[in-house]
Amino acid sequence: MDAIRAKIASRAIGPGDRLPSVRGFAETMSVSPSTVVEAYDRLAAEGVISARRGSGFYVTGSIIPPMSVSEIGPRRDRAVDPFWISRQSLDADTSSLKPGCGWLPTDWMPNAALRKALRSLARSEDALLTEYGSTRGSLTLRRLLLGRFAEEGIDASADQLLLTGSGTQAIDLICRFLLHPGDTVLVDDPGYFNFQALLRAHRVKLVGIPYTPAGPDTAAFEAALIAHKPRLYITNSALHNPTGASISHQTAYRLLSAAGAHDLTVVEDDIFADFEPSPSPRLAVLDGLDRVIRIGSFSKTLSASVRCGYIAARRDWIEGLIDLQVATSFGGPSPVATALIADVLAGGSYRKHMADLRQRLSQARDRTAARLAKLGITPWIMPRGGFYLWCRLPDGLDSADVAKRCLEASVVLAPGNVFSVSQSAAPFMRFNVAQSDDKRVEEALDRALNQTAE
Amino acid sequence: MDAIRAKIASRAIGPGDRLPSVRGFAETMSVSPSTVVEAYDRLAAEGVISARRGSGFYVTGSIIPPMSVSEIGPRRDRAVDPFWISRQSLDADTSSLKPGCGWLPTDWMPNAALRKALRSLARSEDALLTEYGSTRGSLTLRRLLLGRFAEEGIDASADQLLLTGSGTQAIDLICRFLLHPGDTVLVDDPGYFNFQALLRAHRVKLVGIPYTPAGPDTAAFEAALIAHKPRLYITNSALHNPTGASISHQTAYRLLSAAGAHDLTVVEDDIFADFEPSPSPRLAVLDGLDRVIRIGSFSKTLSASVRCGYIAARRDWIEGLIDLQVATSFGGPSPVATALIADVLAGGSYRKHMADLRQRLSQARDRTAARLAKLGITPWIMPRGGFYLWCRLPDGLDSADVAKRCLEASVVLAPGNVFSVSQSAAPFMRFNVAQSDDKRVEEALDRALNQTAE
Repeated sequence: MDAIRAKIASRAIGPGDRLPSVRGFAETMSVSPSTVVEAYDRLAAEGVISARRGSGFYVTGSIIPPMSVSEIGPRRDRAVDPFWISRQSLDADTSSLKPGCGWLPTDWMPNAALRKALRSLARSEDALLTEYGSTRGSLTLRRLLLGRFAEEGIDASADQLLLTGSGTQAIDLICRFLLHPGDTVLVDDPGYFNFQALLRAHRVKLVGIPYTPAGPDTAAFEAALIAHKPRLYITNSALHNPTGASISHQTAYRLLSAAGAHDLTVVEDDIFADFEPSPSPRLAVLDGLDRVIRIGSFSKTLSASVRCGYIAARRDWIEGLIDLQVATSFGGPSPVATALIADVLAGGSYRKHMADLRQRLSQARDRTAARLAKLGITPWIMPRGGFYLWCRLPDGLDSADVAKRCLEASVVLAPGNVFSVSQSAAPFMRFNVAQSDDKRVEEALDRALNQTAE
Repeated sequence: MDAIRAKIASRAIGPGDRLPSVRGFAETMSVSPSTVVEAYDRLAAEGVISARRGSGFYVTGSIIPPMSVSEIGPRRDRAVDPFWISRQSLDADTSSLKPGCGWLPTDWMPNAALRKALRSLARSEDALLTEYGSTRGSLTLRRLLLGRFAEEGIDASADQLLLTGSGTQAIDLICRFLLHPGDTVLVDDPGYFNFQALLRAHRVKLVGIPYTPAGPDTAAFEAALIAHKPRLYITNSALHNPTGASISHQTAYRLLSAAGAHDLTVVEDDIFADFEPSPSPRLAVLDGLDRVIRIGSFSKTLSASVRCGYIAARRDWIEGLIDLQVATSFGGPSPVATALIADVLAGGSYRKHMADLRQRLSQARDRTAARLAKLGITPWIMPRGGFYLWCRLPDGLDSADVAKRCLEASVVLAPGNVFSVSQSAAPFMRFNVAQSDDKRVEEALDRALNQTAE
């Protein structure tokens, strides 16, 4: 029943379409024909499908039900559903503790610089306050980004950059531009859960590539290229979410060579760049923005309330992406937002802020690791930077069970399988070290671990 | 060749797919088989397709080319392409005159209130400045909107409202939620050009409904429901773009009855509401947010730089839309943007500002109509409010030709066919009365009309 419902929800079959034959579907699902007959009868009783004499079962209804992204893809326990973890984190009340969330506490952000930028904006010219921006977005901010690219070794021009509403919107635009329903996309396993949610909304097939401490497993990557002919691979090269690992030079080179041989486009999401103590290898740098598309945003380091992302790519692709962004958002990101971001980035205090933040995170990482060690929770690796610790729970415990128990105590966690396409990360949990260094987190975890182990 | 290329660009056919047979395609296109043979041979010479002995022509290439939204749908002269007019208006330099654009001059906007709101924001709590917002967006702004809905006669609750990144993003989310590639959508003809661009990005079929001074032609609407079984209808009920007309009570009732009989969902884009001197009929009010989805934004009256839109709909649909917005934008609109908008809307000066604006627009409308009359350009109707005048050019002139000539003089116009799915509005032009009341616009138009008539 679930399989048929999922087909309808994902629009694989629609009103008036004939369902698979009982015998055929029984074979596909490896169940007995009588099981299929029973499922069809129940769905018919619910009015979802109807029988036509001598010709099988058909989907009823005059319209296709609305898309339910949470029903596309494998049916999962809500506790390890990517939407669940996002909504829990975003809508948690202020009294909740959020060691599972993907951002820094508000008092770790450059609030003073933002306030200064707001006051300065209040004195700016009228046009900036009320007009739509240009289609590519603020030239000032694009030039600041190009300066940073040049420091990395990427030689790009202002017409290779498009500012977007957010980093997520940047990836969404790229998916719209390059993907077709039914295409295959590679993601890291484990990998950022919202990539899965986003890609489900594009109705594509996901294939997970096991992630190693040196980046994606290149042998698995090469095998997937041959077996699945994917159109796109989405990854974080530096301070990967959730593991905090960064790709090695050798992995970057092999990965890019394989991508070239199979005409694969790679999206490199670089939002954690500023958290690195020193630069690690980047695919966009090796490739020079040919088949690698760089995206990024300022939500993690500057503000998640003043949102803006960017896409750096081939010039001809940027042209197509501009048309798509005009069609779907009318214009680029808010000029007020890009002016605030450019002001903070250009100000002298931002580099100092980031240096302090890296120091503070390094200490929080050590303290959190020590707290977790007491509970038998051990990091998979100690990352060079950033705010994630990807940890293994004590033997035999399922992180989804632990997360459910902690949620009852208003502690929002990020259980491993939410990051895993193959659902193979049940023993793992992602901790945000800036949100976990709290006695109450430790206590809630301790209780949950004990209850779950019972 | 164009037809095949469009099929490839729109992904109707992809790599490895067989092209239609020469004979079959000749019949479809109403051309001779030899014309098709020539087109296929040329495409084969370009490497786009290749012949396989005895089995026809196939699309080559290992990957499908990126989506080109400007190539989906009928191939058009760039001068009447919806993307062209958007990009011309958004990217015009400050010295250009823009009687064709869809927004007010910056000094007509509530700049003082925005500056005050920015200064107040600079003193607000840290969390507002740096954290992601809740998934539904600011409760304060939603409550303000609910208050306005109540004044109209719409009784809704806060969980029937979702704030979005912009009005366009609101419609885009709804399209993702309800539409499937290949569905049919009804739009007004003439109607807002970016609806066409947006819907093309969703790969749906567009059917235009002729627009009358009392709203869409109900007989044509009813016939289209039977002939095309559309999934959605998108319209402006009040101060329709581009005509400035508003639907009558009778049209609203007939339209909604027909929609009910055919299970059609209606999106009512209400962005011009505040420009009305007194309220005209609304589909969302008659229907009570059952099959009508209300969307709106503040870009036209408050700021296009501080963007935010909203969707008011059935509670269960809002839940699905939240998941989609999380997947594609991560969270709702910028809390900084929604705080600024709520501050200006709640402030005492906004109603005064709108009253002044309506007065000023009424005067500009009369003056622009008088200027245009001297050139033989006459309004289709005199709208009750808003900033558009939909005008007929002197006999025999094509507005696209006039627009191209004026663009050479840095005057950006909005030629009629950009608003017309059926391309039947060549004699018309949309003028923004707040951007047209200028001697230089009159002079450029006069020259262009004379040159075009020669």
